[in-house]
Amino acid sequence: MSRTRVHNLFVSLDGYAAGEHVTFDEPIGGAGRLFGRFDGRAIHGVDGVDAPITVDRALTTLWGQGIGAEIMGRRKFGPQTGEWADDGWQGWWDDEPPFRTPVFVLTHHRRDTIEFANGTSFHFVEGSPAEVLQLARDAAAGQDVRIGGGPTTVRQFLEADLIDFMHLAIVPITLGRGTSLFGELDGIEDRFEIESVSSSSGLTHQLWNKKG
Amino acid sequence: MSRTRVHNLFVSLDGYAAGEHVTFDEPIGGAGRLFGRFDGRAIHGVDGVDAPITVDRALTTLWGQGIGAEIMGRRKFGPQTGEWADDGWQGWWDDEPPFRTPVFVLTHHRRDTIEFANGTSFHFVEGSPAEVLQLARDAAAGQDVRIGGGPTTVRQFLEADLIDFMHLAIVPITLGRGTSLFGELDGIEDRFEIESVSSSSGLTHQLWNKKG
Repeated sequence: MSRTRVHNLFVSLDGYAAGEHVTFDEPIGGAGRLFGRFDGRAIHGVDGVDAPITVDRALTTLWGQGIGAEIMGRRKFGPQTGEWADDGWQGWWDDEPPFRTPVFVLTHHRRDTIEFANGTSFHFVEGSPAEVLQLARDAAAGQDVRIGGGPTTVRQFLEADLIDFMHLAIVPITLGRGTSLFGELDGIEDRFEIESVSSSSGLTHQLWNKKG
Repeated sequence: MSRTRVHNLFVSLDGYAAGEHVTFDEPIGGAGRLFGRFDGRAIHGVDGVDAPITVDRALTTLWGQGIGAEIMGRRKFGPQTGEWADDGWQGWWDDEPPFRTPVFVLTHHRRDTIEFANGTSFHFVEGSPAEVLQLARDAAAGQDVRIGGGPTTVRQFLEADLIDFMHLAIVPITLGRGTSLFGELDGIEDRFEIESVSSSSGLTHQLWNKKG
């Protein structure tokens, strides 16, 4: 069974998982405080090999385990909107995108696939969540598919009831505005078994497993 | 830096991590109740790929990450004592020992190395904890070394101050007798930063990271 998984989604107490306007200087739209109590590596799931092994680290490093493909919104790939001006922008990650699998970027504007030596490739696609998920499943070759965000993309897959697992990290701050993870979703908790645990950093980790 | 790590050590409320007498029928010496609230896979660190992703699972699957060699006591390898009668016994694990690295078995009785197709090899060695650790470090090629137990072996490495990380799972039961993890160790907590978290199964996980 290939599952659809969300990892390391940091959410404020008022339900925001990103700011409003993504820019080159503010990749998550001014909501950087979401990561203030954490070391930030979890954004990319990159593991500091020699770092202490904490509850936060144990949970955030689930990010890459058993994952064969990712789906991300265009805004996670870059701050541009509309037609691609040129092929110069290749994502935020320089020569080492941490994904190391095929990544499907949701966009209405076609562009050639980009391939990196470390196994990451970016494929620019449009379609319904179910259609794009099928592309990603085929590419994942039996492994799980990660829905990599941002929050608007995760919400679309939640609305389509296509999420099997979510790891949310509830951050004890309020943002007041931003991009809501839940929007007008109502009662989605009924579809999941939810386990909560708080770590010494002050984060509350929630593991949402779809009911069988 | 190559660390020395202990994982998935289940300990009763009265400090016992195994029973008294290991036999063919009771590999952990009648202390099987330690695993009654858990599904038991953690003993070997084997992961059920399709199982729900829980706090217990996230923590127990750290077992194999970044590990290049294991050191185990003879009693973990088998229930025999004294000279090896023959080479028939190859461990509890049939053709698929879950280790997939070199494993150094502490024994005063020499025996030829056993190699398995999945990358596991058993090397029978004697020496002080520091001497055997050096052998394992060399075999681990820069990765971490797991001290695989049983509790007597872990205690010897704790006494020698050779443990960098320990994951204990405190089980809410009492055993009344058995093999104590701590023995007469006094104040070892001073050498570690300890984070505790309780999961929905009733286990309390403790992550002990050696102070820098």
